Amino acid sequence: MPKANAFYAQSGGVTPVINASAAGVIETAAKHKQHINKVYAGRNGIIGALTEDLIDTSKESKAAIRGLVTTPAGAFGSCRYKLRSLEENRAEYERLIDVFRAHNIRYFFYNGGGDSADTCLKVSQLSQKLGYDLQAIHIPKTIDNDLPITDNCPGFGSVAKYIAISTREAALDVASMCATSTKVFILEVMGRHAGWIAGAAGLAADQPGDAPQVILFPEVAFDQARFLAKVKATVESKGFCVIVASEGTKTADGRLLSDSGIRDAFGHAQLGGVAPMLAELVNRELGYKYHWAVADYLQRAARHIASQTDVDQAYAVGAAAVEMAIAGKNAVMPTIERMNTARYRWRIGEAPLKKVANREKMMPKSFISRDGFGITPTAKAYFEPLIQGEAYPNYKSGMPQYVKLKNAAVPRKLTTDFKV
Amino acid sequence: MPKANAFYAQSGGVTPVINASAAGVIETAAKHKQHINKVYAGRNGIIGALTEDLIDTSKESKAAIRGLVTTPAGAFGSCRYKLRSLEENRAEYERLIDVFRAHNIRYFFYNGGGDSADTCLKVSQLSQKLGYDLQAIHIPKTIDNDLPITDNCPGFGSVAKYIAISTREAALDVASMCATSTKVFILEVMGRHAGWIAGAAGLAADQPGDAPQVILFPEVAFDQARFLAKVKATVESKGFCVIVASEGTKTADGRLLSDSGIRDAFGHAQLGGVAPMLAELVNRELGYKYHWAVADYLQRAARHIASQTDVDQAYAVGAAAVEMAIAGKNAVMPTIERMNTARYRWRIGEAPLKKVANREKMMPKSFISRDGFGITPTAKAYFEPLIQGEAYPNYKSGMPQYVKLKNAAVPRKLTTDFKV
Repeated sequence: MPKANAFYAQSGGVTPVINASAAGVIETAAKHKQHINKVYAGRNGIIGALTEDLIDTSKESKAAIRGLVTTPAGAFGSCRYKLRSLEENRAEYERLIDVFRAHNIRYFFYNGGGDSADTCLKVSQLSQKLGYDLQAIHIPKTIDNDLPITDNCPGFGSVAKYIAISTREAALDVASMCATSTKVFILEVMGRHAGWIAGAAGLAADQPGDAPQVILFPEVAFDQARFLAKVKATVESKGFCVIVASEGTKTADGRLLSDSGIRDAFGHAQLGGVAPMLAELVNRELGYKYHWAVADYLQRAARHIASQTDVDQAYAVGAAAVEMAIAGKNAVMPTIERMNTARYRWRIGEAPLKKVANREKMMPKSFISRDGFGITPTAKAYFEPLIQGEAYPNYKSGMPQYVKLKNAAVPRKLTTDFKV
Repeated sequence: MPKANAFYAQSGGVTPVINASAAGVIETAAKHKQHINKVYAGRNGIIGALTEDLIDTSKESKAAIRGLVTTPAGAFGSCRYKLRSLEENRAEYERLIDVFRAHNIRYFFYNGGGDSADTCLKVSQLSQKLGYDLQAIHIPKTIDNDLPITDNCPGFGSVAKYIAISTREAALDVASMCATSTKVFILEVMGRHAGWIAGAAGLAADQPGDAPQVILFPEVAFDQARFLAKVKATVESKGFCVIVASEGTKTADGRLLSDSGIRDAFGHAQLGGVAPMLAELVNRELGYKYHWAVADYLQRAARHIASQTDVDQAYAVGAAAVEMAIAGKNAVMPTIERMNTARYRWRIGEAPLKKVANREKMMPKSFISRDGFGITPTAKAYFEPLIQGEAYPNYKSGMPQYVKLKNAAVPRKLTTDFKV
């Protein structure tokens, strides 16, 4: 393909390391000047392409691009915007091609989860139909770790590390206080559909019986009586109980716990999460003093304690996406292949987007302990390599130095606007 | 004083660095073998003294004691147990002296906040009345930073650092997403009576207008209309708004926000905190999509990102307490004196417990900006030195290595039990 520009966009919920993938794309493209002229980023993700609001990343200093490796969240802005199907809104896809054509964009790098893999595939298909040469490569990213084929997803390892560390630390706190005060501590974590993040909290335990003694997964139907019995037995034997609850914990009939009848009896559904609901339940039925935390954005923005493995992999999939595009590939996604678990080694693989789009990878049954409240040694062996290494950012005056890009706009070329 | 044993106990809510003070006590005592024989720790704080449940710290390895410097929470157990006044329960104080006498304890080191300073003073007074020679030294500790005389309290700097970093990180997250998704993020932090922790979140901002754009302090009466106007104006100008709310935020009539009428209309008071309440309010009145987090124990256990200044000071007050005791001092507390702010220097000072006990230091008015939603440059200059340096723990397999002590019991000598 003759020399052309590239488009890069961040999609969906951001992560501590999605900017490392951006750095991988931009720095690798700079090594291939004979193929790629400029890398344009979409301001606020794909919306930037639809509205022709492009960012010229060549206006940033090399140091700023390097700084993306240690900066959390989405430096160009991300968005929650799912393109509808081709049948429903062909105009959106055609608009993308129009913008790409206007700016001589022949490389499309889309950095996101399952929805964006689907969008990436459709853009690739439509460009072929319209006879517009475009290499569309999806770059995996999701803290939920639920993309198929790839062994793990960039973003997950750092969140797993943060949650495992936070669980270990908070467990020491409640263990210190339980003689006269708090006996039950509940940490609510993300993961609406799959229990990967909740499962990673199990890394906090060194020995059987260590905290967290109870993990609640979306994959295991919540049974109130069994839950209360387990909490009671743990407090009676250990003096305290640490619970890690996925926000996606559900009852047997599929209702989210935070929307269950138990909660409805007490308040407005929007107010609470799973943690305060469980805390109230434990206090009402067992009488224990409790504390609860909801980590929310803190967990997925915690670049200060990112996993080095995760940062390396996030960068590598960005770099590999560029190499794949230059090699003429289309509608594929770089994956992470686990070569060995005992002495962890990984390499970049490749998956066709047809096999990635719209498929969720749930946690295997073999990862959840028989009683449903913990993880198995198999799960621990899977999780452990992903949190290796502490990728600390630089600090100044006691605070991490995260880069702020100029995000200079590319002059518009089209005369038409597009409403999103 | 002839050679005798020392007693050390941890009191109240634990911190990321209270164990560093314990290491300061134990390691310094070991340098003064001619004065101090063994350091006994109270299992679960002062309760361990009342029930004659003492821990022999000489049974621990030197490496384990050193490891306390990098281990959060209370390694010997703490307790929420306030001794009543001498008039109300003289028996408790006499029991303490009985236990001390039985174990030849002549040095009493009590590591806590305002309540424990008061207990420490009373123990000192009673021992004098009873003619039992005892050196009682209080070691300051509280994440709330509300002890008088001392410039700051060990424990606070690390929590301040964690909250400032978490606020900066979460702000990048919401800034990335605000075009199509979350516009308001609320972080609830500790500090029921004083706004020191909430104020420290202001360190996340480099420039005026940076997040957090709204801080809610216990010192400033919550005004719903002004709050909503500020949030609306911020979202309209910045695209998003980050709010840090102290758990102690109150309305003008002194009611905690989490117990206010607004909340009562929707549910059971025990369920929620300030953050979900504010989130619901913002959504109902302004219609913005929100996320909220409650850091709870995560903030006060986060040894993984402790302030080096805080660790150094926590160790120093422990060491100084021993030096003071050996110098024959009684009913005093080592303090931290700020020598210079621009080029921060500090030294250990000394305060009589009479001036410390039962006095809370609120944040000065000069620390809160005129509109009541932020901190002043004066506050920033005060906070900034306290979060300097990253005191990272050691990691193994991706997880911080925190010590677990043997906590071997000292054989009992008394034949009487004591009910607490």
